[in-house]
This record gives sequence, structure tokens and C-alpha cells, in this order.
Amino acid sequence: MEQVNVALLGFGTVGQGTFELLVKNNELIANRTGIAIKVTKIFVRNIDKYSHITLPEGTHFTNDVAEIFDDASIQVIVEVMGGLTFARECIEKALNAKKSVVTANKDLLAEAGPYLLDLAVKNGVDLRYEASVLGGIPIIRTLYESLGGNKITEVVGILNGTTNFILSNMTEKGAGYAEVLAEAQKLGYAEADPTADVEGLDAARKLAILSSIAFNRRIFFEDVSVEGITKIDATDIAFGKEFGYTIKLLGIAKETKKGLSLNVHPSFISSNHPLASVRGSYNALYVKGNGIDDAMFYGRGAGSLPTGSSVVSDIMEIAKNIHTNNLGQLKPFYYFEKNLYASGKIESSYYIRILVDNSTGVLAKVASKLAEQRISVQAVTQRNENETTSTLAIVTSSCPRSYISNVINAFNNLRVVREVGSVIPIMTD
Amino acid sequence: MEQVNVALLGFGTVGQGTFELLVKNNELIANRTGIAIKVTKIFVRNIDKYSHITLPEGTHFTNDVAEIFDDASIQVIVEVMGGLTFARECIEKALNAKKSVVTANKDLLAEAGPYLLDLAVKNGVDLRYEASVLGGIPIIRTLYESLGGNKITEVVGILNGTTNFILSNMTEKGAGYAEVLAEAQKLGYAEADPTADVEGLDAARKLAILSSIAFNRRIFFEDVSVEGITKIDATDIAFGKEFGYTIKLLGIAKETKKGLSLNVHPSFISSNHPLASVRGSYNALYVKGNGIDDAMFYGRGAGSLPTGSSVVSDIMEIAKNIHTNNLGQLKPFYYFEKNLYASGKIESSYYIRILVDNSTGVLAKVASKLAEQRISVQAVTQRNENETTSTLAIVTSSCPRSYISNVINAFNNLRVVREVGSVIPIMTD
Repeated sequence: MEQVNVALLGFGTVGQGTFELLVKNNELIANRTGIAIKVTKIFVRNIDKYSHITLPEGTHFTNDVAEIFDDASIQVIVEVMGGLTFARECIEKALNAKKSVVTANKDLLAEAGPYLLDLAVKNGVDLRYEASVLGGIPIIRTLYESLGGNKITEVVGILNGTTNFILSNMTEKGAGYAEVLAEAQKLGYAEADPTADVEGLDAARKLAILSSIAFNRRIFFEDVSVEGITKIDATDIAFGKEFGYTIKLLGIAKETKKGLSLNVHPSFISSNHPLASVRGSYNALYVKGNGIDDAMFYGRGAGSLPTGSSVVSDIMEIAKNIHTNNLGQLKPFYYFEKNLYASGKIESSYYIRILVDNSTGVLAKVASKLAEQRISVQAVTQRNENETTSTLAIVTSSCPRSYISNVINAFNNLRVVREVGSVIPIMTD
Repeated sequence: MEQVNVALLGFGTVGQGTFELLVKNNELIANRTGIAIKVTKIFVRNIDKYSHITLPEGTHFTNDVAEIFDDASIQVIVEVMGGLTFARECIEKALNAKKSVVTANKDLLAEAGPYLLDLAVKNGVDLRYEASVLGGIPIIRTLYESLGGNKITEVVGILNGTTNFILSNMTEKGAGYAEVLAEAQKLGYAEADPTADVEGLDAARKLAILSSIAFNRRIFFEDVSVEGITKIDATDIAFGKEFGYTIKLLGIAKETKKGLSLNVHPSFISSNHPLASVRGSYNALYVKGNGIDDAMFYGRGAGSLPTGSSVVSDIMEIAKNIHTNNLGQLKPFYYFEKNLYASGKIESSYYIRILVDNSTGVLAKVASKLAEQRISVQAVTQRNENETTSTLAIVTSSCPRSYISNVINAFNNLRVVREVGSVIPIMTD
């Protein structure tokens, strides 16, 4: 049986998951590909750290990355170190040495993906990155191949497990943000510094990668407007529930007549929407296209074996392409001008929560400000907080974000409004 | 630009959807594949029926199928007629003429898939069938390639839109089976003769196709145990809701230590399970594997454009393979002995509803029969129907199906039990 030799760069969570699957499913993988896939070298910076691990015969650790690039028997390099500079250097070196590359590095791809893909084609090899977004959920190849007959009009994703864990737990337990974040940190679902997750940056990087493929454009991290979940309040979640909505941090890429809008922000969605049922640390991507109508892809967005599963499927694909002499066929897919549509112009329904005086005529004053801004109201709930203050939760009809900004200014100038608590968009279609 | 010529056999729902997508997404598809895909001939039995349709230049109807097989310029044949005998004859003729084939014909594949796939490899061409199961949801290639690094341990699917529409509506409206079936027929979600759907046959065919790929075995329709939804009662749905369960018609293929079990039957699942949120005519497949943990694929299970989307993605793949001289690489994937596990031996929790005398000591008598059969009870609800009768709804712990059959016999011999209403398995993991 033909053998394809693989080197791993990095042996952290994803590297170990990849290795574990390649070893334990070895026979199955050989059956399915007709090829023996063998990890022969694993690059780690500090070999001593791994001295307790016994590798199978024919596999060894090295701290000399050049040993891997110089090894002509290695045809596939798997970059699972993360980081930008050194990882990019290694990937470029590998591609230029006509070795195919598998990477799980979303930060790098969100910054330099199109450039690296061009480089792979130029060198006649494959660069694959199924594991860079949505962990174990097969989505890159799904968008690129299986949905290739569709004009994709919208992708909406729960792209970050940490924030979905936090929001799901706030929803199910009625608990506050800080409390649930602390629990998530204790359970290992959130990092000590949770910024990249809770501020939506991680989701934005994934949205950039997914949108590039779905919409055939060169999209980068900085093209995405981002807002995190740190201001979400248990009060809003409870009001949302009354209106039939569930809160999610969504990455939304939408093709409009005026361009492509790219946003990550907390959003209410109907509790009947399939994305609303995505709980805990799970991820999902909901896709609309002019053939499929709609579809959703759901699963583990992170973790050693799920992410390893995506890496392994990429390695298998490359192995098959080596066998059939078919590398370098992943043509660049950026046919269209970027043509972005500013997020401020997107129309949406909104949820607005304000604290007001508890007195006669307050609702009329608030309603007249909404009317002045041509915002129509779909629903409103009033809750008395104490003798002097009430909370108003308002659901508007669809309107541009600028109308909402204007009415918030108007509310702030209204004497009966004590505080504008929250403004949350509602995804209605 | 290279051109690949395609012939359609059949121009019904799926054929028209395929054609519509190829025409309206023509430029996008050409960009994505680098190939101009052109339908040049469409075989229909009765040309006159289509005389009102204006085809684009270079495309024409024919009622002579030989004209297509003899046309050397046609490299891809798309079989979207359905049926067994003539469709099979055409597919075999096409493969033997070294033309690649795309088919949406699940009945034929569930009966003869492995044979036809072998024939395609023998002739060095592709036979693709993404559209044969789950309409627009990309699942064949997902199982075959994207999840290829996994040992798949279980697939559980909502594989039939008609029955899911009926059960969802019964659940949401509290309506009876006959009433909802009539509504489904009126709306076009159920056929005049709904047997293949409501008796689970359609779902069983799809489970056979999916299991072949997931478990690398030659599985046929007759290997699947089938039970339909016609006996499901609104009462059971209501009791299930109380216990936190939702009713679904599930296709369940499960790898056990003693073999592969293949079953289609109505089942309760936790209302928190992702499959529980699949409503209306939507389909979904939930997959467990030793890498991904779990994942779910959700979307339109039927319809002209969704199913057409799957056909088109297969045509695109074949076109790319023609371009790269890479046809015939879909190797047969039946590595394992069939080794089926009889469905009667599967362990499961069960829901049992019985009508009993409304008198003291009845519960004790029922409970002792359960205890005699070593069945432990997880929950029980009693509802008085009138002065003389009560309903007992019982949820058991996991036990073999044979225990349940025994206890049902015992109930039937118990004087206080007036009727055994329903027995429904509960999927607990």
C-alpha cells in the first residue's frame, strides 16, 4: 500500500487530537483512502516536555523544524501551532518546498488566507483548512463543493463556543454575565483572559474565513463589524423570552443589493429558529442559498478530537490527491469585488429597553419619539420596578440602524427617560 | 473554457430544479469549476407535454433515449426519472458507455446501489447520488469524505419530511393523526397514497443508503426493521411532553458490540435534543463518531431546487474530475461484513400507555408485573379518565425489547388492565 508521510508542527490540543485519530482509526483510514498515512515527525520547541510520551515506531519528535522541510519523504505538513509570524513562515516555506499544508490557524487565515491559497496553487500543492473554523463541523468543503451550485445569500453562525456557553447558561439559569463567565472559566470553557471570545473577535475571524468562500470575495478580519456580549443583561434575556426570542452571539454575512454586510453582534432570534436550539458550547452555521433554501450545520466547535477530525479529513484528501496526481486544484475563488455594505445601514428589527418614570403619559412621550423617527412598534411591555420607576421593553419593526441611534438620542434628552438600558437587533428572517 | 455536456433523463420536479439552477447560476458555476456545464439533451417520454417550455439554444428535448447514449459529446447522464427497471437499465447503459452518472433515485440505490457503484469503478467513471437522500442537505460527501477520519458509531435521522410534518403538527396543534394527514395531503406534503411515507418505507430506504457509507457495509432496504407512525396518538404526544420528550419518526443505525442495528420507528427524544427542534417538513441527520463526538446536518429534505442543488453539486464534481482526468476514483467502500444485530435485542427505555381500572391497588399490580420482568420504572403518570377508568403512562429504564413484549403480554392477562394503548421507545443518548 502506498504510504504518505506527514509531519505535525505543534503537539498541543489539536495536534494531539489529530495524532490520536490517525493512530486509532489507522486501519479504517487506510481502507477509505487506499493509502497508509503515517506521521513520521512532530516538531515541538521543547522536546523534554514530551519525554513521557511513547510514540509508535517510525514517529519521533524534533525541535529542529528544518529537519522537516529538508525531509523529501514528507509530503504533508500539518500546522497546528497557532500564532501568526512563525506559523506563516513555516507554511510559506512548506508550500514553496512543494509540500501540501493543512492548517487549523484561523487567526492567520483571517489575516492572510487569500495570499497563502494563491501561493499553494502557484506551487501546485494543496492548502486545506477545514479545522480553522467550527472545529469538527465539516463546513469549508461543504460551502466550497457541496453547495457550489448555489448562489449563497446569507450565512448566520454561532461561531464561538465560549460565548454560546455563557449566553445559554444565562438563559437557562437566569444568571448574570459575570457569574456565568466565572463558571465558564472554572470549567475550562473560557480562558483567563476571555477578551477574544466575549468581545466577538474570534467569531469575526471565523466569519471572515467562511464569507470568503461563501461569497467568493477576499474578506479579512478587519472587514467585519464586531460587538461582544459583555453588556448583555439577564433582564434583557428574560424580556426576550416573553417576546418569543432567544439571545445568541451571531456572525451574520448577508448579500444585499448594495453589497455584502459582515457583522458579529448579540442578536435576538425567534425561539423557533434552528439556531435557537444550539446550546452550551456547540457551534452551528445556518446557510441560505438560491438552491437549498436553508440548511444548518451543527456540532462541536472546538476540542482535541473534533478539531482533529477536520484536520485528518484534510490530510486524507491530500493523500488521495497525491495518489491520483491531482494536487493544486483548489483554485482561488475570489471572483467578485469586495463591495461591502456598511453595517450602520442594515435594516433590522430592534429590542430597546429603557428605564422611565412611573407616571401617567410616559408611554405616550416615548411612543411619540419613536413615531418622529418613523419607527413603528411591534410590541411593548411595561414592568413597574418600584413606586417611581418602570422598565419599558420595546420591539420595533424593521428600520435602519441610524433611526435607532436617533431615537436613542431623543430618549436621552427626554426627562422621563432615566436610562437607556439595552439596544439589541432582532433577526427576523 | 472547457465545456462538459450533460443529458437529463426525466424532467419532473428534480429535473426541472436541476436545470433551473444550472441556467440561473451558470456564471457562478463556471467560475467555481472553470468549466462550462451545458445541458444539451433532455429525455422525456412525451415531448408534447413540454411544448410550452422554451429551452435555451443548444438544449433540446428528445423522446429517444438511444440518441443520448449514442452521443459521444455527452459525458454526464443525470437520471431523475425515478422507478426501478428502466432507470437501472439506463444507468447501466450509461456506465458501460463510460459516461458518468448522477442519480437521485433512492429506491434504486437502496436496492442495487453497491452493484451500480462497482460497475462505475469498473468502467472508470463516477456514479454520484448526493440527491438520493435528504434533498438539499449535503450528506453523502460529508460522510464519505469530511467525516472519513471517524469511526462512525451512530446515525440518527429525521429522514422523511411528510411524517415529520405530520408529527410536528400533531405536537404543536394537539391534533389527531387523521386530521393532520388530511391537511398534509391538501398542502401537498403528503401523497394521495401516503403509504411509503407514513409506514416508514421511504425513511428505511434512506437509512440503508446512509448506513452503507457510514458503516462501510453493503446495506439494503430489507436489512432495516420498519414501523410507521399511523398508530401515534395525540394522547401519547401530550404525555411525552409532560415527561420532557418530543415524538419523531427516526431512522437509527447503531454500531453495537454485537453488530449493526438498523431501525426506523417512532421514538421519543428529549425535547432538548437537537433533533427535537427539527420541525415541519425539514430533515436532519445526527451523527456520532469517535472524532467529532456529535454533529447534525439540517435542511430541506425534498423540493425541486434543494434536491436540484445536490444534483448540480454532483455534476460540478464530475466536471472537475473530467477536467483533471480523475474519474472513477470513488472506490467501493464496503470493507466490513454486514453483521446485523437483530432489532428485538436492542436495549432502550420505553414509554408504555395503558388503560386501567380506576380502583385501589391497580398501580401495585401493574408495578409488580414490571418488577417480575426486571423492568425498572423511571416515571409514571396517572390520569383519571372517568369514575371507572384511568390512564397510566409509564417510562421504563433501559431494557431489551423482549422484556417489554413480555410485560405487555402480562398486562394483557391482568384483569385490571383494560387496554394496552401504546409502546414507544425513548432515545436516551
